[in-house]
Amino acid sequence: MGKGDPIMRMYDIIVKKREGNALSEEEIKFFIEGYTSGEIPDYQASALAMALYFQGMNGKETATLTQAMVDSGETIDLSEIEGQIVDKHSTGGVGDKVTFIVGPLVASVGVPVAKMSGRGLGHTGGTIDKLEAIAGFTTEITKEEFIDNVNKHKLAVAGQTGNLAPADKKLYALRDVTGTVNSLPLIASSIMSKKLASGADSIVLDVKTGSGAFMKTLEDSEALAREMVTIGNELGKNTVAVISDMNQPLGFEVGNANEIREAAEILLGSNVEDLRELSLEISSHMCVLAGAFADPAEARRALEENISNGKAHAKLKEFIEAQHGDGAMIDDLSQLPQASYHVEVQASKSGYVSEIDAESIGVAAMYLGAGRQTKEDKIDHSVGITLKKKIGDKVEEGEALVVLHSNTGNPEDSIAKVEEAYTISSKETKSPTLIHNIIK
Amino acid sequence: MGKGDPIMRMYDIIVKKREGNALSEEEIKFFIEGYTSGEIPDYQASALAMALYFQGMNGKETATLTQAMVDSGETIDLSEIEGQIVDKHSTGGVGDKVTFIVGPLVASVGVPVAKMSGRGLGHTGGTIDKLEAIAGFTTEITKEEFIDNVNKHKLAVAGQTGNLAPADKKLYALRDVTGTVNSLPLIASSIMSKKLASGADSIVLDVKTGSGAFMKTLEDSEALAREMVTIGNELGKNTVAVISDMNQPLGFEVGNANEIREAAEILLGSNVEDLRELSLEISSHMCVLAGAFADPAEARRALEENISNGKAHAKLKEFIEAQHGDGAMIDDLSQLPQASYHVEVQASKSGYVSEIDAESIGVAAMYLGAGRQTKEDKIDHSVGITLKKKIGDKVEEGEALVVLHSNTGNPEDSIAKVEEAYTISSKETKSPTLIHNIIK
Repeated sequence: MGKGDPIMRMYDIIVKKREGNALSEEEIKFFIEGYTSGEIPDYQASALAMALYFQGMNGKETATLTQAMVDSGETIDLSEIEGQIVDKHSTGGVGDKVTFIVGPLVASVGVPVAKMSGRGLGHTGGTIDKLEAIAGFTTEITKEEFIDNVNKHKLAVAGQTGNLAPADKKLYALRDVTGTVNSLPLIASSIMSKKLASGADSIVLDVKTGSGAFMKTLEDSEALAREMVTIGNELGKNTVAVISDMNQPLGFEVGNANEIREAAEILLGSNVEDLRELSLEISSHMCVLAGAFADPAEARRALEENISNGKAHAKLKEFIEAQHGDGAMIDDLSQLPQASYHVEVQASKSGYVSEIDAESIGVAAMYLGAGRQTKEDKIDHSVGITLKKKIGDKVEEGEALVVLHSNTGNPEDSIAKVEEAYTISSKETKSPTLIHNIIK
Repeated sequence: MGKGDPIMRMYDIIVKKREGNALSEEEIKFFIEGYTSGEIPDYQASALAMALYFQGMNGKETATLTQAMVDSGETIDLSEIEGQIVDKHSTGGVGDKVTFIVGPLVASVGVPVAKMSGRGLGHTGGTIDKLEAIAGFTTEITKEEFIDNVNKHKLAVAGQTGNLAPADKKLYALRDVTGTVNSLPLIASSIMSKKLASGADSIVLDVKTGSGAFMKTLEDSEALAREMVTIGNELGKNTVAVISDMNQPLGFEVGNANEIREAAEILLGSNVEDLRELSLEISSHMCVLAGAFADPAEARRALEENISNGKAHAKLKEFIEAQHGDGAMIDDLSQLPQASYHVEVQASKSGYVSEIDAESIGVAAMYLGAGRQTKEDKIDHSVGITLKKKIGDKVEEGEALVVLHSNTGNPEDSIAKVEEAYTISSKETKSPTLIHNIIK
C-alpha cells in the first residue's frame, strides 16, 4: 500500500469514485499522501473532488480521509494536560461570541479547555482578534505556558502554530477554485481534521443553520452535523453537534470589543435569551463529554450556579490575566475600547421585524472596520453594531433598529447595508427556534 | 464575451455545469479559448470535465463546444474541390477495412472523397499504414496535389497535417488521465471537431457496437451516434450514422496487406457478407449526402453495378497509382506482402462458435507485428490473421479457427490470444445482426 505501490494509480481511484464505489483505506491514504507530496497533480485531485461532489463518501471513507489529513502534518500533543480535554467548534455566524462564554464557564466547573484559534478573514475578527480587544492580552505563549495555564486555570487560548493538516490546506485551496467546496464529506473532513490535529479528546460542534449560515437549510445542516459526528465517533473522539439558528445575528452585539463585553455580561448573569441559552446548552454537553457530569441537565445546574455565584466571571478575569490581559477591563466593561460615534439606523415604517440578514449585518460591521477584507487590513477593536430589534420585535417608524459604533461620523455604506438587512412586515412574526436539534 | 471579459470566470462556469445548467455559447468559447491559451489551468478544466461527465450537455452546447474546438486551430480549405465532399469516420474496430472499399466505390460514381488520415497506435496500423503495404504508395503529397488528385480521380488520401483542433488534443490528453474520457458530449465533440476541421461538407459515421467496440451496448452506441448527428446538423453538415456490429472482427482478414487484399477482393465482387453489406450501406449514404442520388436504394444499384463491371476495382488501381503505388499489386493481389509462416490455431472441441472477442484477435495481430504498442514500433505489413470461423459457424475439434500469417515459426503469444478469443458452445448460435440502426 501507500504511494510506493506500483499497482495503485490515481486514475483508477478517480474512476472508482466516479462509478459510485467506496474507496479503500489504502486508496484514500495513497491520494492524500501523494497529493500532499506533490506526486499527484492538482488536475487529478480536482477531478476526484468533483466526482466526490456527485458520489459522496460513506462514514468509514470520510473518517479515513480525515485521519489521512491529520497524519499529513503535525499534531498537537496535549497529553500533559490533566483530565479529558474538550473542544468546541462553530461553523460560523455573525455575532457568535459563544467561545468567550463557554470557555470560562466550563473551566469554572473544573473541565479543561485548551483552545487553538485563528484570525482569518471575516466580517469581524477571529477569536484571537476579539480577545485582543482587551489591552495586553496575548496568545503568543509557548507550548509549556499553554499547558501550564490549562493545568492551573483550566483555560488557555493559543494561536494556531505548526503545520496542522497541510493536506487539508492544499485541498481546500484547490476546492475553492474548482467549485468543489460544497461537498459534505469534504467539508466535514476539513473541519474535523483541524480539530483532531489540535489534540482534543472530545468535541462539541455548533452547526449553524439558516440564512446567515454556510448551510441554509435545516436538512443540510443536520446532514453536515451527522457527517462530522460520524467522523468523530469513527476516530474514537466523543462528538456531539448542536444545530443552532443563524437566521439572524446571535445576541445583540457584533464587533470585537462589543462581543467580549456581551459575553462577559452573560457570565455576570445577563439574560440575552438566545446567547445565554445556546452557551449553556453547549457548555453542558462539553461537561458531559469530559466526564464531569452524568447528564446535560446536571451539568447545566452547576454551570448556572457558577454564573449566579460569580465564579464564571471570575474565571474569565483569571484567564485574561494569565495571558497578560488587563483584568480591570473585565471588572469594568466600560473600559473596553469604545468608538467615537454612535449612529442610529431607524425603521422606515412600523411593523414587525420579520427578517434580519446576518450576512449584511456582518458586512456592515466590516465596513466600520471590525473585520478584514484582505490579510493586510488592520482591525479596529472599538467599532461594531448593537442590534436594538430582533426578529419578532414590534417596531415603530423612526425607532432605532441598530446603533452603529463608528469612528467616522457618517458610515453611509454600513447604514445602507443595515437597511438592506432588515425586513419589516405588517404581520406578527415569531422569533425563530434557537436550538433545532442535538446530534450524537 | 470572450476571455477579455472581466466578469466571466471559469469558477462560475464549473459551478453552473455542476448544478446541471446549460452553458451559454460565450461560456463555452471562454473555456475553450482560455484552456487552449493556457490561461485556464488544467485543474479547472478537469473539474469541469468531471461535472460534464455527470451533468452532460444538450445538443446546442455540444455543437458549440465542437465549433469552438474547430476554431481553436487551423481548418483545411477544400473549396477548390468540385462537388460536395463527403467524409466517412469509423469509431474503430478490428478488421475494419471499409475505408478501402467505400473510397474507390463512391469515387467510381463520381462523388469526390478527400480523406485525411492518421497512423496512430493500435492493433493494426492506421489507414495510412495499411495503404503503405502497397509498394511505393505515399500520402506525402502537397495540398495542391491532393486537391488535383481529388478533382481528377475523385479520391485522394493525405496524412493529417496542420494544427487541427488543438483544444481537442489538449483536452483529450487531460481527460485521458482524469477519468473523464467516457462522457458522451466530450467523445462526440472530439470526433466531430477533427472531422469538421478537415473540411468535409457531409459525414457518414460508422458507429461500432458490441464487445469489440468502444461502446459495448447498442443503447450507448445509439446515444453517441445521436450526439454526433446532432452536432453535424447543428453546424450545417449533413450527417448520417450507421450503427454496425463489432461483436467479432469485420470480414475475415486482420492485418495490413491482408486487409488491403480483402478490400480489393470485395471491389472485384467477392461476397464476404458482412464486409460487402456494410460497405454498400455506408457508400449509399455517402452518395446520397453528396447529392449524387435521390435515395440510398438508387445509389446502391449504381454502386453494385460498378462492382460488377469492374469500375470500382479500376478506381482503386487508379487512386493507388496516382499516389505512386504499384498498380500491379492491385491487379494481382498475390503480389502484396506475404508472411513466411502460416500457422493454424485449431478448435479444442466441436460445437458452434458463440463468441469471438475482437479485442483479443486484435492483440494477437499486434503480437505478430501488425500494429504498434509505442510510437517507435515498426509495422510489418505482411503479417496478419485470417479468420476461418465466425460466430454461428459449426466447427469440428481440430479444425482451423484462424490462420496466423507470421514471420516467426511459433507465435505462441498470438496463439494463446486467439484461443482466449474464441468461445465454442454446444448450442447453435446465430450470427449477430450486422446493421442495427441508421440515425439521421
